[in-house]
Amino acid sequence: MQDLLTYLEAEQPKINEALDREVGELHPLVQATIKHVLSAGGKRLRPLLTMLTARCLGYGRDDIYPLACALEFLHSATLLHGDILDGAELRRGLPAAHTVFGSTQTILAGDALLALGNKIMARPGIPKLTECISEAIMHTATGEIAEIAHVRNAKLTEAQYLDIITGKTAYLIQASCRVGAILGKANKERERAAASFGLSLGIAFQLVDDALDYASTSEATGKPVGADILEGKVTLPLLLYLRDMEGPERETFTRQFEKKILVASELSDIADKVRQGGYADQTRTKAKDYADRARDSLLRLPDNKERKLLETALDYVLTRDK
Amino acid sequence: MQDLLTYLEAEQPKINEALDREVGELHPLVQATIKHVLSAGGKRLRPLLTMLTARCLGYGRDDIYPLACALEFLHSATLLHGDILDGAELRRGLPAAHTVFGSTQTILAGDALLALGNKIMARPGIPKLTECISEAIMHTATGEIAEIAHVRNAKLTEAQYLDIITGKTAYLIQASCRVGAILGKANKERERAAASFGLSLGIAFQLVDDALDYASTSEATGKPVGADILEGKVTLPLLLYLRDMEGPERETFTRQFEKKILVASELSDIADKVRQGGYADQTRTKAKDYADRARDSLLRLPDNKERKLLETALDYVLTRDK
Repeated sequence: MQDLLTYLEAEQPKINEALDREVGELHPLVQATIKHVLSAGGKRLRPLLTMLTARCLGYGRDDIYPLACALEFLHSATLLHGDILDGAELRRGLPAAHTVFGSTQTILAGDALLALGNKIMARPGIPKLTECISEAIMHTATGEIAEIAHVRNAKLTEAQYLDIITGKTAYLIQASCRVGAILGKANKERERAAASFGLSLGIAFQLVDDALDYASTSEATGKPVGADILEGKVTLPLLLYLRDMEGPERETFTRQFEKKILVASELSDIADKVRQGGYADQTRTKAKDYADRARDSLLRLPDNKERKLLETALDYVLTRDK
Repeated sequence: MQDLLTYLEAEQPKINEALDREVGELHPLVQATIKHVLSAGGKRLRPLLTMLTARCLGYGRDDIYPLACALEFLHSATLLHGDILDGAELRRGLPAAHTVFGSTQTILAGDALLALGNKIMARPGIPKLTECISEAIMHTATGEIAEIAHVRNAKLTEAQYLDIITGKTAYLIQASCRVGAILGKANKERERAAASFGLSLGIAFQLVDDALDYASTSEATGKPVGADILEGKVTLPLLLYLRDMEGPERETFTRQFEKKILVASELSDIADKVRQGGYADQTRTKAKDYADRARDSLLRLPDNKERKLLETALDYVLTRDK
């Protein structure tokens, strides 16, 4: 993992410089909101994946930085709009942008970031790039819509849950890798391998995120413990817990949860039971399965330093505790 | 004008069929919101401009319909988000989407439409198309941001006002024409001519819109009379009125307007004075100047049936009373 951190440390100044330069071109009114969301930590996972995949496939040019940043912009746009939709108050321990700047500026800032990401991606004049990005954004929007459509639906199936997280999280991570492969002029098989790697990594990433929501403390994640259940989000730890419940008990919970009858303290108690029952750990085990799939996909990419770092990124995703 | 209406009548079923087909692919949760904004009238001006420009330049394929619709989707996305930002309650005489479906669904529907528009535009694999569209969306977002930044700023200059309307309205209309030119494989000069035509037409369109806000009745526009001044928007009729005010009187108004001291009835009185002073008419005269510029640009396009219809579109924009 140390190798990846060293790599990231070396590249982060150039990534951040590119981020600042592009954001500096936007209207001053939205800059503060955008800087707020960009500076709220984040490991620049998506730009890093784009750079590593591109370089793994032989891309050596420095215009990789703004292109890699475009993925961070698109991701940040989904965070800005998403936090409004979820009514989330915190983002990585800091107040969510809409609580500081208001909904108007946050919607505008998200729209500006979406436009900026698309504009940067159109620069090289490679149709496949914009196709890849536009599809990913479409999937992301659809995933977010599906998530909202299923709020408080305790009858959600595991397959539906996987569809939701694949859409809202994994497709943009897949695109981060695919963009790298397209820039690296990968042949079809390698482009597919990079895409599969990204998709599986993305699913693993969200599974760990959903496990962390139940497993870790507020200080570590920067979000309240059990934030998901409080927002009415049904994620895998809760689904696994419900599957093991007795029939009548499950029916009671399902009915009360749907009707918003349960108060915060009751929901927190359930979150505790989910954690104590080991369902967050089971979710992490599932994440490991997806990470293994991602590892298999990597074997179809050239065996070099960057491929090793991509493999390390998998370990980072699996072991992170915030 | 009759020719244009006949053309529109013949094409509208195919445009609407393409709109329905594309929207039908989206998640059911956002379809109702999207159908609401799409069905709230609208003359499909942007798709029509794309089709006419493309055909004027010799493009004969039927895949023009979804591509033309992409412009309507992008436009509708800006309406959905824009009405939330403005706190507008009505849109063409119907309740604005966010008042019916709530902000969450309206933000999501706007994001889905933005993604859909970009995705459709990426289909033909022509880099210039996506570049054109991404730039237009960036300008549109920037224009909306600037408009919000200048709410209640009675010291706005005419140049700043023109920048705002060029961004928020004219660039997407410019793109509608430029997309047609790119599809029609226009040479550089003709592509520029189509773009100039669209930009001037777009500015004229918004000037007339801003004049109508002061000049016409609520039944005609489907919006309250003087809605702009009530929302704190400073548009050209008000700017012209202020320019003719005595110094001290203007300063008093400026201060009170900025501080939101004026109540609705006082603002309505000012709107009446703006109308009675002929400032809406002066704004229409300005629109005519831009329409003349647009007409000049048309001369650089091939002289055929479609060019005549594009010229008629100018008359439609200038003479519309709602």
